Amino acid sequence: MRGYVLHGRGDASFGEIQVPPLGPYDALVRTTAVATCTTDVHMINAAPYPNAIGKPLGHEGVGVVEKVGDLVRDFTPGDRVILSAGGADWRIPQAQRGEAKYYPNNMPYFSEDPLQGGVFAEYVRALDADMSMAPIPDGVSDEQALMVPDMVATAFTGVERMQIEFGDIVAVLGVGPVGLMGVAGAALKGASRIIVIGSRPKTLDLARRYGATDVIDYKQGPVVDQVLALTGGVPVDSVLVASGGSASDQFTAAFRIVKPGGHIANVSLYYEDTVTLPMDALSYGGIEKFFTGVFVQTGREFYTRLLRLIEQNRLDPTGLITHRFDGWDELPEALDLMRSRNPDVIKPIVTV
Amino acid sequence: MRGYVLHGRGDASFGEIQVPPLGPYDALVRTTAVATCTTDVHMINAAPYPNAIGKPLGHEGVGVVEKVGDLVRDFTPGDRVILSAGGADWRIPQAQRGEAKYYPNNMPYFSEDPLQGGVFAEYVRALDADMSMAPIPDGVSDEQALMVPDMVATAFTGVERMQIEFGDIVAVLGVGPVGLMGVAGAALKGASRIIVIGSRPKTLDLARRYGATDVIDYKQGPVVDQVLALTGGVPVDSVLVASGGSASDQFTAAFRIVKPGGHIANVSLYYEDTVTLPMDALSYGGIEKFFTGVFVQTGREFYTRLLRLIEQNRLDPTGLITHRFDGWDELPEALDLMRSRNPDVIKPIVTV
Amino acid sequence: MRGYVLHGRGDASFGEIQVPPLGPYDALVRTTAVATCTTDVHMINAAPYPNAIGKPLGHEGVGVVEKVGDLVRDFTPGDRVILSAGGADWRIPQAQRGEAKYYPNNMPYFSEDPLQGGVFAEYVRALDADMSMAPIPDGVSDEQALMVPDMVATAFTGVERMQIEFGDIVAVLGVGPVGLMGVAGAALKGASRIIVIGSRPKTLDLARRYGATDVIDYKQGPVVDQVLALTGGVPVDSVLVASGGSASDQFTAAFRIVKPGGHIANVSLYYEDTVTLPMDALSYGGIEKFFTGVFVQTGREFYTRLLRLIEQNRLDPTGLITHRFDGWDELPEALDLMRSRNPDVIKPIVTV
Amino acid sequence: MRGYVLHGRGDASFGEIQVPPLGPYDALVRTTAVATCTTDVHMINAAPYPNAIGKPLGHEGVGVVEKVGDLVRDFTPGDRVILSAGGADWRIPQAQRGEAKYYPNNMPYFSEDPLQGGVFAEYVRALDADMSMAPIPDGVSDEQALMVPDMVATAFTGVERMQIEFGDIVAVLGVGPVGLMGVAGAALKGASRIIVIGSRPKTLDLARRYGATDVIDYKQGPVVDQVLALTGGVPVDSVLVASGGSASDQFTAAFRIVKPGGHIANVSLYYEDTVTLPMDALSYGGIEKFFTGVFVQTGREFYTRLLRLIEQNRLDPTGLITHRFDGWDELPEALDLMRSRNPDVIKPIVTV
Repeated sequence: MRGYVLHGRGDASFGEIQVPPLGPYDALVRTTAVATCTTDVHMINAAPYPNAIGKPLGHEGVGVVEKVGDLVRDFTPGDRVILSAGGADWRIPQAQRGEAKYYPNNMPYFSEDPLQGGVFAEYVRALDADMSMAPIPDGVSDEQALMVPDMVATAFTGVERMQIEFGDIVAVLGVGPVGLMGVAGAALKGASRIIVIGSRPKTLDLARRYGATDVIDYKQGPVVDQVLALTGGVPVDSVLVASGGSASDQFTAAFRIVKPGGHIANVSLYYEDTVTLPMDALSYGGIEKFFTGVFVQTGREFYTRLLRLIEQNRLDPTGLITHRFDGWDELPEALDLMRSRNPDVIKPIVTV
Repeated sequence: MRGYVLHGRGDASFGEIQVPPLGPYDALVRTTAVATCTTDVHMINAAPYPNAIGKPLGHEGVGVVEKVGDLVRDFTPGDRVILSAGGADWRIPQAQRGEAKYYPNNMPYFSEDPLQGGVFAEYVRALDADMSMAPIPDGVSDEQALMVPDMVATAFTGVERMQIEFGDIVAVLGVGPVGLMGVAGAALKGASRIIVIGSRPKTLDLARRYGATDVIDYKQGPVVDQVLALTGGVPVDSVLVASGGSASDQFTAAFRIVKPGGHIANVSLYYEDTVTLPMDALSYGGIEKFFTGVFVQTGREFYTRLLRLIEQNRLDPTGLITHRFDGWDELPEALDLMRSRNPDVIKPIVTV
Repeated sequence: MRGYVLHGRGDASFGEIQVPPLGPYDALVRTTAVATCTTDVHMINAAPYPNAIGKPLGHEGVGVVEKVGDLVRDFTPGDRVILSAGGADWRIPQAQRGEAKYYPNNMPYFSEDPLQGGVFAEYVRALDADMSMAPIPDGVSDEQALMVPDMVATAFTGVERMQIEFGDIVAVLGVGPVGLMGVAGAALKGASRIIVIGSRPKTLDLARRYGATDVIDYKQGPVVDQVLALTGGVPVDSVLVASGGSASDQFTAAFRIVKPGGHIANVSLYYEDTVTLPMDALSYGGIEKFFTGVFVQTGREFYTRLLRLIEQNRLDPTGLITHRFDGWDELPEALDLMRSRNPDVIKPIVTV
Repeated sequence: MRGYVLHGRGDASFGEIQVPPLGPYDALVRTTAVATCTTDVHMINAAPYPNAIGKPLGHEGVGVVEKVGDLVRDFTPGDRVILSAGGADWRIPQAQRGEAKYYPNNMPYFSEDPLQGGVFAEYVRALDADMSMAPIPDGVSDEQALMVPDMVATAFTGVERMQIEFGDIVAVLGVGPVGLMGVAGAALKGASRIIVIGSRPKTLDLARRYGATDVIDYKQGPVVDQVLALTGGVPVDSVLVASGGSASDQFTAAFRIVKPGGHIANVSLYYEDTVTLPMDALSYGGIEKFFTGVFVQTGREFYTRLLRLIEQNRLDPTGLITHRFDGWDELPEALDLMRSRNPDVIKPIVTV
């Protein structure tokens, strides 16, 4: 079968690869739509994980079940499904404490299995299918579902870390696709005022549609000053960091605008060597400001709840999709869009 | 000044009462609008609290600050404010653990102070004004604000007890005004499917406007059967009990439709002697089903967040207001409406 | 092989049964010690679950791995292990939300598989061995480990539901073996004053050893009065219900002694048809008192943490063991002890 | 009256100061014992807060009530009390959300009131006495109580942030007096293995007495390596940072030894300009590791619970006290001990 394979640093192309064999708990899924992500670009540019080399890239995909292993309980060929964007190990004891996702050893990037590849391929093996895939309800389109495993799931995992209470004032640093879903998630968790920080007019407009009440262009002045000017000097209850730039700058801004006792959740990946923060922004260590990185929650149970929000018209993530491509041949173009600095690109998808 | 005073069981009327004196932390507020509540009717019918006799009734009110005590920090005459619907003691050590509201000894119903009366009076003394009252933002109307201290606050306190996660399926038993705000609150906390149980067409329509996705008429069959028929037999994640009827029936239904590990929050008052539940609905004691009653959260901090939801257009509680009266003379009529079984009555208010 | 089989109501005896075959994730464990439980007695007397008939009884056992299925990762023959006291389904999506234990369809009582039996047998099949069994550390004896899967695990699950904060005052109603471990668990969670209610001198003495600071004999007067007399009228922060008697009496006492905002966790099974509570103890529905039943948490991750408490000398549950038997032939005698009302019996075990 | 006053950078001495007048909620307390703290030394050396200049230093003290304001409810002259180590504002709306301590504007260091001084004085005014002071039970000595407002309270606030579950493995970096109380607190919260990192033999011995199971001398090799060697490479569940050294080193070690999903709570103050962390220890931002600083919880409710742990013999903090002085004249000597690098000093106290 055909797959878009990572060969090494800066080198990825289509190639002919083997259809993976199935274990008793696995499913083979025929891919029907994929999305490209900045992470894919980073994977190609930096090739940071040796185990990913020689395998198809891609982690945002939906498809149709082609066949299932003998012990799969709940799926049958023909089912429309979301593929997992992460590779949680649901059979590790830590899963019993909610930590399955920290053992992503069956994810293509980390797996030692040469046949465990990404979603940029005609067929994908879903390990532990009953636990890792989610059925797409009839009322939810492929396009909607395709935004769930990474864009919605990452943002909403981050929003959960913000511990929003009714009427909270929150800030979202960065309004790329994950930031935009962070805005939608914060609105769904009962935030009142949602202040977003960005610069691209298109995404700021979209942020308003997803629930932002205040929009700040970071090119107009220091973020901290602008946020505090808006609130009359009152720090915000929580912050979602979903921005580019440097970790040092973004985290510092977050610590400076969040209240004592507030929460900062970071959903961005920063590939710098170090992060440096001023101690006064941390009150020299002597104040609660709860900070954490965020790893996307995966799994059928979570995906099912997110899909239900779409099915019940609480959320429509298709506002993120700015570019639509048709057929595997156009995948490289969709990747190029993610590489470009084109301010009109939020999320390209490829229907195959 | 004039006040609508409880004289004894079944006996309440307007009378001339003393304007209360102010302590250093108190404010005197000129009432501008009040709402009548089923609790007021119960207070008149049953007169259950000796300390309430001889004092004005009423606990839902907004007004304008007339004067303030010497040590009041943040209010000045002319400020529009919400009056507290409960009488939390913010100066008791338990307040430091979030339990202030369980010491409502400065509430008219419980207070031994003969001058500590309800809001059905021309002037109301707000004890501990900085802590108990909330300023009404310019963008929020008196009518909107008037729904906050009991209707929104009670319902949203109940919704917090439901511990809703993204995409949860919830049920709301009863769609009086608190149930309706429960629907709105559940939607704001990220529930996907919100199943409401009622029978009055007007309130069921309004429930849909506030976010209900499914509506069940309990006159059409057993509630448990109808809910499980809707969900394909899957129990719901949490239940808000906001219904009339008997506690035994309502709690039993709640235990039967909620999942193991799910939450039941009851915001209704049931003036029966006992409640009887079948042990099988509780799995003979051997399963987690988290049950609690709910006491309305009060206080400036909470009210301020709720008002901000209105200010930012996340919530408009005025859909509850079905009847508007003008002037104190019409208060008895507004109370009569609460006594009536008129299915078109949700919430009457009186502007004064 | 030999097993102590439930034949029907009131009818259980040793019989010859088939050694169960293994699936790829399963392990066969040779039983080395078991404990008898009041639940076993109830199972024999009432035979409430049709699927249990014809299978060995028993749910508290430890053993040595005899063989493992092809896909078992972490166990090998010879390993000393705890067998699961419950039959959580770790391969159901709800497990991803911490609800695996509510799907105990592989427990002998509920399983439709005629070969899925209890631990009163020479060999036991552990389904999903990597997830359901826990290895016993070298520093932990079989006797200590045998108390973990039900006695310690049930009590500690209940204690978690009490949400104890540093210095809390708690009450434990009932000091059978689970109540005693509840005392130990409450001490380990930072309770200061631990008030236990019982009547048997032996268990009350043991309660003190496990951390009880105050001991009440319910035969000396009403429990509520005695508790409040001890505390000077201050309600307790949380209650563990681990008593016999009637659910109505025990739950009512719990509601009457717990503070508003406090937690009640019930770990007892009450085989009555109904429970009746006075509405005033629930403040007519209008106060937070958080009530829940408790289902024992199982799983390798939890068992491992409990075993570690024993290994590090934080806990020694062998104080519960009052009677020791040797060999399968003495199992009926150990069951008879649980049937007896002998006040000196806490927990009998049988080494085989 | 006499007080030990901060005059400016590096300059503090006894002087005659005014006995503060009382407001209606205040109490005047005659100091009976105080402790010296590294923070006092820092206050003298750096004089970082202008409002502290001209006032008595000191924040750890106990005393006897001398007189009370007109509106004080629960204290009378002669009561033995703990004085607050922080100056939470219990009359600010944020207090209703548990954030009172973040508004310490009535603490000597921050207060603009020239008569609001520290505890190194013959008399201390306790603002909002009912909320800020705690009565010392008969069974608790002054020495025990003196360790509560900062040493125990700071450590236990930190331990609460660790979110310890039964049987967790935790690490405590640094075993000064707060670290030692962190060990005791972690044991009281159900940790199994408690690994402490220090170097002074005396404190490491004491750490074992307070519950440490493993002791690492950081002079024997890199902390991260030593911890992971002890655990067989398994990261710990949570970390309390209570060490000296540099924030960059300590936080980096904490991030490297804590598991994904684990908690890091820092109770130390680091007076550096910046902290620098390697991004790989934070997984480039893409993993949950929950980090927070810690501000000591104050208030009568919390102090009361901590005192109850001592009263019930769950905790005895007097192990911290290494040096005892008698009379105000010896206070400078007690401060000198905190300045010294004497490895035998943990906590000096002065009885007056």
